[in-house]
Order: sequence, then C-alpha cells, then structure tokens
Amino acid sequence: MSGARRGRFITLEGGEGVGKSTQLRALASALRDRGLSVVETREPGGSKGAEAIRELLLHREADAWTAEAEALLFAAARSDHVSRVIVPALERGDWVLCDRFIDSTRAYQGGAQGLADSDIMTLHRIGSRGLLPDRTFLLRADPAIVATRLAARGEGSDRFEGKGPAFHAAVGAAFDTLAEADPARFRTIDAADDAATVSANILVGLSDLLP
Amino acid sequence: MSGARRGRFITLEGGEGVGKSTQLRALASALRDRGLSVVETREPGGSKGAEAIRELLLHREADAWTAEAEALLFAAARSDHVSRVIVPALERGDWVLCDRFIDSTRAYQGGAQGLADSDIMTLHRIGSRGLLPDRTFLLRADPAIVATRLAARGEGSDRFEGKGPAFHAAVGAAFDTLAEADPARFRTIDAADDAATVSANILVGLSDLLP
Repeated sequence: MSGARRGRFITLEGGEGVGKSTQLRALASALRDRGLSVVETREPGGSKGAEAIRELLLHREADAWTAEAEALLFAAARSDHVSRVIVPALERGDWVLCDRFIDSTRAYQGGAQGLADSDIMTLHRIGSRGLLPDRTFLLRADPAIVATRLAARGEGSDRFEGKGPAFHAAVGAAFDTLAEADPARFRTIDAADDAATVSANILVGLSDLLP
Repeated sequence: MSGARRGRFITLEGGEGVGKSTQLRALASALRDRGLSVVETREPGGSKGAEAIRELLLHREADAWTAEAEALLFAAARSDHVSRVIVPALERGDWVLCDRFIDSTRAYQGGAQGLADSDIMTLHRIGSRGLLPDRTFLLRADPAIVATRLAARGEGSDRFEGKGPAFHAAVGAAFDTLAEADPARFRTIDAADDAATVSANILVGLSDLLP
C-alpha cells in the first residue's frame, strides 16, 4: 500500500444489452475528469490468463460445460484477474471499473442454472479471498428494449446471449434478489433512460464514495 | 445403472517418472484378460473439455497461474472428466483406470504449494460430488531412479516436470501423508522394481476388489 489510499472497486452488472460497456466508458471518463486514475476492465477476462479461460467459456457449443465446471472456470478466471490486475490497481490507489464480476456468476450459474449461492461464494473465497466491490450498479431494462438492442448488434454472438427468454428472465430475477439483499453495496439503475441520464444517475449513486 | 453392477474406479498416483502410464496399460490388459470392460483415462484431461483446460495448465510459463487459479482449473477439468467420462463408464459397469486424480491436486497444489487440503476437497465436492476412487496405487521410487527415467524421456517436457528437487520432495511427502491417512483406499507400491514385478504387486493390491 505504501501509504497511498486504496482505490475503489466499482462493478456494473445486469443482463445482456442493458448498456454496461457504454456506461463503463462514460463513468471512467467522468472519474478521470475528477482527476482520478481509473482502470477499465471486464469479466470473464481482464488478464492474460483469464482471457484464455474466457475463450474456453464463450466460444464453445451450448452444452459444452456443466454448471459446475462453468462456475469453476469463472472462479479460476476471476482469481487470475483479481490477483494480477484488480488488487494491484487498488493498492496503487486506482479506481477499478469492471464490466461484470461475482454477481454475474451468482445470477447466471446460480439463479438461472441452480448452483447453490453458498458454493459460488465458497469458490470466490478460495479463488479471490472473497473480494467484493465497494459499489455495484445493477442496470435494469425492459426485455423488449433489450431485445431491440441485442438484435441491432447481432444476438447470439456468444453462448449466453444465444439462450432463450426464460433463461434471461431467471438471470434478471436473480440479479434483483442480490440487489435487494445488499442495499449498501448495490444501486439499481433504470437502463431504459437515455445514456446521458443513466450516466448521471450512476454518478449520483457514487456520490458517497467520491473524494 | 439398469441393474448392472457398478464398475470399479482405480487411480494411479505418484511423482513424475515412476511408471504410472506403463503400469496403467499393463493393468488394463490384465483386467481385460479377466473379461472385464476397462476404460483407460488420465488427468488433467480425459474428456474434450478437460483436454482444452489441460492445454491451459501445462503449456504456459512457470508462473502463469497462482496456486488458487491452478486448483480451480484442475477442479473444472476434473468436473468435466467425471461427469462426461468416469461416472457414465462406472454406471455401464466398466472399470475405470485413471492416471492421476484428486490426490495429485492435493499433493501438487496442496502439499507442495500450500493450498489448504480442506479447500481442495471443497472444490472436489462442488465440481465432482466428491467422487473418490475405490482403490489408489501410490507408486514410489528413489529420486535418483526417477531422475534417470526423466532424463531418458527429456526432463522438463511440461511445466510441473520443470520444477526443482525441493518441489518434487514436497510432492512425494504429501502423497505419503495422504496414503497413510487412508489405508483402506491406498496401496503403496515400490516402483523401483522391474515393471513386471510392479504389475504383479498392483494386481495383488486389487485382489479384494476383483470379481
């Protein structure tokens, strides 16, 4: 730590097509305008080893992995990402913005595929010392709006986007449950608004953490 | 199961160069001579998904993975191997012979790299329902003999074989501890004997399980 203030760890979560990556870039820009040093990253991936695992996870046929194997692969990728990128950045005093993190595993492999949340959190403890974000923004939007956005960029471009509406509804419900259970960490954002409004709402939701 | 007797699950463990793969082939042949249906497999790998993970594990630089990420990748590969290959074979009534299994993770990532055995077994429970072999043969040989064998086939051919003698001594000590703690499952075999003698000793160590 060498005396520097530890940076903040912020994650954006939500289903496909809600605008996470757009909002992450906008938030990074807004924080840099305030003089903060910002690292932008994403999961699965974000480090060399984790990107190699990402290839195994996203570019295989739909039944390539059981939910258990998938959760272990995500935990392995996250362990590499946390130890090689996220923790070193936080210890330098940087702010780390991450597109998806542990809550995506809890929603996709847990809520939508039935893996126990306690097991997912155990994998997270073993792999990443249970690191949790200082703030998590859950971006929510009406499924019809999301469908339009996904169609515009070519739906089904990876294995998760190719799943059906019942799967994505289960993912959405799981995210809602996680946000309700931890209101100190989560802020729920209406992603149906225009991008500038969403960005402004995210900044409001960070006001208590900003220097 | 459809009424068939469940097959037996046999693993061979030990450090590099003790003759596991030679002995596995010999044991498979001896069991087939007795009319048994036998599946020969190995870890890491043994199924399509697990072989893809094996590539990530063995063919990268020495510090590619932390012990935690490595243990999670082994658990993911094992989960795939168990659910796609081992359990279906056992349910058909086949005997499954596997070159390395959970005890290798316990010795390499646990004993030699400091990961808690309880965490490794937790990963095994989550990924593979904690499946344990019916019998495990620990092949042991003097380090000087092993060094000669490894040199003959080109030492350092993968990431683990390239580690130093202190690492391999720690692995050996960890295997010994595991065998001592579970004498019902383990049989320790002197691998310094000629191959035919080792094979005969392995068959003796299976006599209580043979039909």
